[in-house]
Amino acid sequence: MEMFYRYNWMVREEWFKWCEKVPEEELLKERTGGVGGILHTLFHIVDVEWSWIQIMKGEPDFQESFDDYRTLALVRDLSAKFHDDVKPFVLNWTSEFEENVFEEQLFNGEIERSTWGEIMRHVIAHEIHHIGQLSIWSREIGVKPVSANLLWRDLASSQIE
Amino acid sequence: MEMFYRYNWMVREEWFKWCEKVPEEELLKERTGGVGGILHTLFHIVDVEWSWIQIMKGEPDFQESFDDYRTLALVRDLSAKFHDDVKPFVLNWTSEFEENVFEEQLFNGEIERSTWGEIMRHVIAHEIHHIGQLSIWSREIGVKPVSANLLWRDLASSQIE
Repeated sequence: MEMFYRYNWMVREEWFKWCEKVPEEELLKERTGGVGGILHTLFHIVDVEWSWIQIMKGEPDFQESFDDYRTLALVRDLSAKFHDDVKPFVLNWTSEFEENVFEEQLFNGEIERSTWGEIMRHVIAHEIHHIGQLSIWSREIGVKPVSANLLWRDLASSQIE
Repeated sequence: MEMFYRYNWMVREEWFKWCEKVPEEELLKERTGGVGGILHTLFHIVDVEWSWIQIMKGEPDFQESFDDYRTLALVRDLSAKFHDDVKPFVLNWTSEFEENVFEEQLFNGEIERSTWGEIMRHVIAHEIHHIGQLSIWSREIGVKPVSANLLWRDLASSQIE
């Protein structure tokens, strides 16, 4: 589990660096699909990861609006701030938490049950999926995307930044 | 590990169904980014998953060319055929395999070492990343993409199709 999170954090950092080289208007431009833009996607990834971790911790989740974070610096700061909440939860994860259940009432009144194991993997897949979208937009504006390769990042070692 | 594979297989099947509703010319059209097209992406996902599993099993990998698989039916058949090789390996995966090492000589002559744990996660992330790309192209042609949600798919249960 932890290896995937470290992968996502590393790739996210590389996308933040990628953003430094791209005009802000391209980062903010409305695009088709996903949440509709490059910086908005990075904001969304950061927000969703933190929100799910907060839910599992039983701590308050508030809904951030991208309207308040429309610069690279603001999204990066939010990511760093939320990381302080997310990282200890991920590093302390053990298989004992797998079967914990979270219940959610949907708009139609039905109750959906998710295990924490599913939620942790959902958060991982969510980020990778949205990063895939960034890679298309990156090529559309003529810039090489960040590599999505999980190999050769020394992730199997136990070093944690 | 297995939950992620079952997620990917389920989502892939939904994309194959999605393809049934889309004109073949859209599936084959050259697009910007990724491997350059919708059906080509699905072919690539299938090919890469199988190739890595073959490598870990120490069995022959051959390089398929998309030129020989330019219909939905052919890619689906290849996916089903390769699944017979992939599925047992995934279902029999245990944490004992995590630290097994695969060595690869790169074009520049360097040796890169990857653990099987890294390879298994690379295959997972690879598929999710490329599916994210499909979701953008799907919106570009005005069709709703397959949901990437990992939750509410009953993946925590131990049922294996």
